[in-house]
Amino acid sequence: MDIKYELAEFLIKSNAIRFGLFKLSSGKSSPYYLDLRIIPSFPSYFKFIVDALKEKLDKIKGDYLCAIPTSGLVYASALSYASSKPLVYVRKESKEYGTSKLIEGYLKPGSEIIIIDDVITSGRSIINTAEIIRRNGAVVNNVITIIDRLEGGRGALSKISINLFSLVTIKEIADILYDNNMIDEDIFTTINEQISS
Amino acid sequence: MDIKYELAEFLIKSNAIRFGLFKLSSGKSSPYYLDLRIIPSFPSYFKFIVDALKEKLDKIKGDYLCAIPTSGLVYASALSYASSKPLVYVRKESKEYGTSKLIEGYLKPGSEIIIIDDVITSGRSIINTAEIIRRNGAVVNNVITIIDRLEGGRGALSKISINLFSLVTIKEIADILYDNNMIDEDIFTTINEQISS
Repeated sequence: MDIKYELAEFLIKSNAIRFGLFKLSSGKSSPYYLDLRIIPSFPSYFKFIVDALKEKLDKIKGDYLCAIPTSGLVYASALSYASSKPLVYVRKESKEYGTSKLIEGYLKPGSEIIIIDDVITSGRSIINTAEIIRRNGAVVNNVITIIDRLEGGRGALSKISINLFSLVTIKEIADILYDNNMIDEDIFTTINEQISS
Repeated sequence: MDIKYELAEFLIKSNAIRFGLFKLSSGKSSPYYLDLRIIPSFPSYFKFIVDALKEKLDKIKGDYLCAIPTSGLVYASALSYASSKPLVYVRKESKEYGTSKLIEGYLKPGSEIIIIDDVITSGRSIINTAEIIRRNGAVVNNVITIIDRLEGGRGALSKISINLFSLVTIKEIADILYDNNMIDEDIFTTINEQISS
């Protein structure tokens, strides 16, 4: 199976890519929305993607995984189980009860961390996470995501010396969907206009 | 390996059980705190627990897993990968951007759901989750947790016709730790006083 074609087709079939007018977490608007949280409800697709992430991971230097909750954590946790790499995750905010900390799990000082997230847009939340990890004495050189929305994330990460690896870009998804008559020309144009907008 | 002994010993060694004065998410105070979020940082323990959950899961009727974020989701997601059972999770609050919903993932109407969480205390958050699932047209009869703190959770679940399965109870952990000189008598007494307090 070609991961890019499979993923593009599944996004449409499962309603994990939707068209309309959406507000992203950054506040920016978008003519499409990706909801990769739906994929773990389909075990064969979930396994397919986690195994594809593992194949990518096996080629990249690093001894720890760091997830970004919540959606990135679902993949990173299965990937940690599948790859036997230790996992930590970085909270958005410290919770008020119990113990208060930003990094959950045990982060061995000096470790090289690979950040795992489902989708990258501007890279803002990944950069926040990388900075927290670096302040806590570990190394970050690489990030793996499932989809790159091509809205500046790769360039922003590059400025802080981090490489981005993605299974597929939104441009590749749009091309596959358009070439196979799964989206019309209007939607195809709209997606392309969103790229690096 | 005996799961109960292994888990008790690891909780102490990794600092995942801590003694002092803690405020739980319910607002209740506790002389000990369980942080099972540290376990995925130790791949062999994480795999040990996920596989023990899978063994339990294989004996229970149900076709879907539902996780409670964030800490329960880390286990449920690896368990979903390991068992090929579809996963959904229930948010505490609906987020403001993108699409707004309480259940993330695709919940097939009429499915029988097994709720997965790391620790049960009073059962409050599990009951909230079960009620949301039932309102959305699915069935919940069973819950699996790693540790039962024995503070009323089993009884509260029973009132809404839900069975609780746990890998180990805090009573069993305290007995193992005390019998093997890993905690002193004061702490042993304090833990026992907290049970069903």
